[in-house]
Amino acid sequence: MTETKLRRDAIQILRASLAAADPVQAVKRHVHVMGDQLIVGRRRYSLSKFERIFVVGAGKASAAMALPVERMLGRRITAGAINVKYGHTANLKWIELQECGHPVPDRAGLEGTQRIVELVRAAQARDLVLCLISGGGSALLPAPAPGITLEEKQETTKLLLGCGATIHEINVIRKHLSTLKGGQLARLAFPATLVALILSDVIGDKLDVIASGPTAADESTFANALKILEKYALLERVPPAVKARLEAGARGEIAETPKPGAAELSKVQNLIVGSNRLAVDAAQRKAQQLGYRTLVLSTSISGETRDIAAMHGAIAREIVESGRPVRRPACVISGGETTVTLRGSGKGGRNQEFALAAAIEIGGLERTVILSAGTDGTDGPTDAAGAVCDGRTVERAERKGLNVFDFLARNDSYHFFDALGDLLRTGPTNTNVMDIRLILVG
Amino acid sequence: MTETKLRRDAIQILRASLAAADPVQAVKRHVHVMGDQLIVGRRRYSLSKFERIFVVGAGKASAAMALPVERMLGRRITAGAINVKYGHTANLKWIELQECGHPVPDRAGLEGTQRIVELVRAAQARDLVLCLISGGGSALLPAPAPGITLEEKQETTKLLLGCGATIHEINVIRKHLSTLKGGQLARLAFPATLVALILSDVIGDKLDVIASGPTAADESTFANALKILEKYALLERVPPAVKARLEAGARGEIAETPKPGAAELSKVQNLIVGSNRLAVDAAQRKAQQLGYRTLVLSTSISGETRDIAAMHGAIAREIVESGRPVRRPACVISGGETTVTLRGSGKGGRNQEFALAAAIEIGGLERTVILSAGTDGTDGPTDAAGAVCDGRTVERAERKGLNVFDFLARNDSYHFFDALGDLLRTGPTNTNVMDIRLILVG
Repeated sequence: MTETKLRRDAIQILRASLAAADPVQAVKRHVHVMGDQLIVGRRRYSLSKFERIFVVGAGKASAAMALPVERMLGRRITAGAINVKYGHTANLKWIELQECGHPVPDRAGLEGTQRIVELVRAAQARDLVLCLISGGGSALLPAPAPGITLEEKQETTKLLLGCGATIHEINVIRKHLSTLKGGQLARLAFPATLVALILSDVIGDKLDVIASGPTAADESTFANALKILEKYALLERVPPAVKARLEAGARGEIAETPKPGAAELSKVQNLIVGSNRLAVDAAQRKAQQLGYRTLVLSTSISGETRDIAAMHGAIAREIVESGRPVRRPACVISGGETTVTLRGSGKGGRNQEFALAAAIEIGGLERTVILSAGTDGTDGPTDAAGAVCDGRTVERAERKGLNVFDFLARNDSYHFFDALGDLLRTGPTNTNVMDIRLILVG
Repeated sequence: MTETKLRRDAIQILRASLAAADPVQAVKRHVHVMGDQLIVGRRRYSLSKFERIFVVGAGKASAAMALPVERMLGRRITAGAINVKYGHTANLKWIELQECGHPVPDRAGLEGTQRIVELVRAAQARDLVLCLISGGGSALLPAPAPGITLEEKQETTKLLLGCGATIHEINVIRKHLSTLKGGQLARLAFPATLVALILSDVIGDKLDVIASGPTAADESTFANALKILEKYALLERVPPAVKARLEAGARGEIAETPKPGAAELSKVQNLIVGSNRLAVDAAQRKAQQLGYRTLVLSTSISGETRDIAAMHGAIAREIVESGRPVRRPACVISGGETTVTLRGSGKGGRNQEFALAAAIEIGGLERTVILSAGTDGTDGPTDAAGAVCDGRTVERAERKGLNVFDFLARNDSYHFFDALGDLLRTGPTNTNVMDIRLILVG
């Protein structure tokens, strides 16, 4: 197999995984209407048993997710309200869109959330609430608890970040300062039937983490939240209203978030319709169709990009040298999201830097191609989704007078691959299930 | 499978790989004497055809490699001389050991090398030269070319390191300032038969890289060496004798190092008897015997330890969650050598830090064990070879009041695992084929 063929295959495999992550496709793959039956994953609902259907949601991809829902349910939708990021709209007929601030919530977000709360609260035992959740859904569904302002909530988050609190700890606090997060949207909908369709943008696909889990059981408590503030000596530094609420909660004066097994969650179905894992699965199927022996390393890879890239390169080298961990024609797939520690002032993104560092590692290997791409189509502040390299990339660059080490030192992967014509440009995909990386050895 | 059983298996698998890397075992596995036949790998030599047998060598493990050679050939050995690091001796009868400086060569090294040169030069067409090479063999076989002092050679290396020259570039220069490196020991032995037994401590096991390749063909030239000095603007900064020699060589006034296909190399057999790959192979066989499905990721993994550990942890998590890349009971094996960027002033080594970072990544996973160990038995400046962790390590540490993040931030892996009783202590093994890492999911 030539590098040209391998590159073509790699792009086909990437396309298959992007299709699986596409919000419209993701919903269509998991939700069907057949006559009176609404089929969601493995569950079936009789549409005639519902008096009303409400559609709510929040997230960058939620407008796109609503498109197939409208196509399937059409005029059966009683009313709908979804919060999206400015510009992330779609042409909807039955569902209202509210464009709001992200990543910093704004007044528009608060207003949109109010409308969502009204609809969900109105739902009764014979009603269905469809909830469309995607990445960004936390900031796009701001719902500070009574007595707490949005600013006080943000101030608290800022203090926690400054102390090095983990994202898990921050989420515990956030859920207990909110009226919707941590399963409280589901409680509000009870006793209506609630079906949440979820596009996951986080490692591990934990329901209580994605968009702070508005429809998922929450294991954390007010007491946990207080303990975290104490741990970082923030109890006297957070806004007094925040401290007062958490203390009242810990004394049992405020209702806890719904815990696993709670009756209020008994009519909830949470279904992940799009995720890095599903995108990786689709890549694997496509690679198998194309005749590759496939190996999925992991869908939860994080860490410093250049080191993770070096390890991918070492695996490629091993395939070439010893046929391990998988024999050629081989396609190794990994997912997740790495980080870049900026050292220079160049232009790039984590996926382009991944390809740049990988190019060094596989330099000289024949019939070896590595591709890395963000499923959102915009890698860092660039117009590319990622880049592709092979065993000759470093040499080709050198002939053009480009030194790969210099570009890596400057974090200037964009200009390196642009000069070689090896950027991947998909355009924004309006979805995000993190990144896909491929090693192909033909 | 319990964590206890998995840990026991992990240590058994590690032991099998250490045995494969043991210098005595490594030689015994690849070299046999049957009657008149000396069998080295796939080649056979008729001992009666040799008039004399000389044994030479250099490296930290070379004394131990000589033990089985003496046991097999005994009084057939005419004479022998091996340079070893101070203290790295063995009880030999026919072969002289010279203890010398490492990593900085010293006068003892020069004297030992002189003795080796005399023996090799004395060898004739009907003689056999056995050469035992292992890690450290470059510094332990100092042989500056005529007109160049050891100090001038070292000064040149220092200048190159200061300019950020690659190890490959430095080796090109070194070989052209030496009378033995870059295949020149083999040329000296010609027309005798030369058999080199090599214990590799470098990624990729390249014959021309291990100990600067005294018995391997060299593709680089005096012209290349000059170009490298020009590239870093060092031509006028290196000692004048160095510049003069390289320029004379480039004009063809000094013989080049032997190139691939050179007649002087026609009677050479180079055989790698120990390497990370062979150690990984042994680990794989043992794991299979113990009933694990095995997967070798790569034997050439480098990079920042904590990031590489995170990626190993992500693979463990994927095995638990989706049965990929290999189904349980799974044993994933990787080799190579990572680096640690020191941030704190704790005590540890790359293998212990690997286990520490991996423990965070696999926190909460059941029946999941990760082990990392240096095959030399001394990880960093500690008395441990490495450490072992499982999904409960972080929690166990917390109960003892030890915070894993704090220890990682301080690079204090030794004290973390010492407190938990999870250090691996093998004692110094007198060998080095880099590191072995295991993921076991039962």
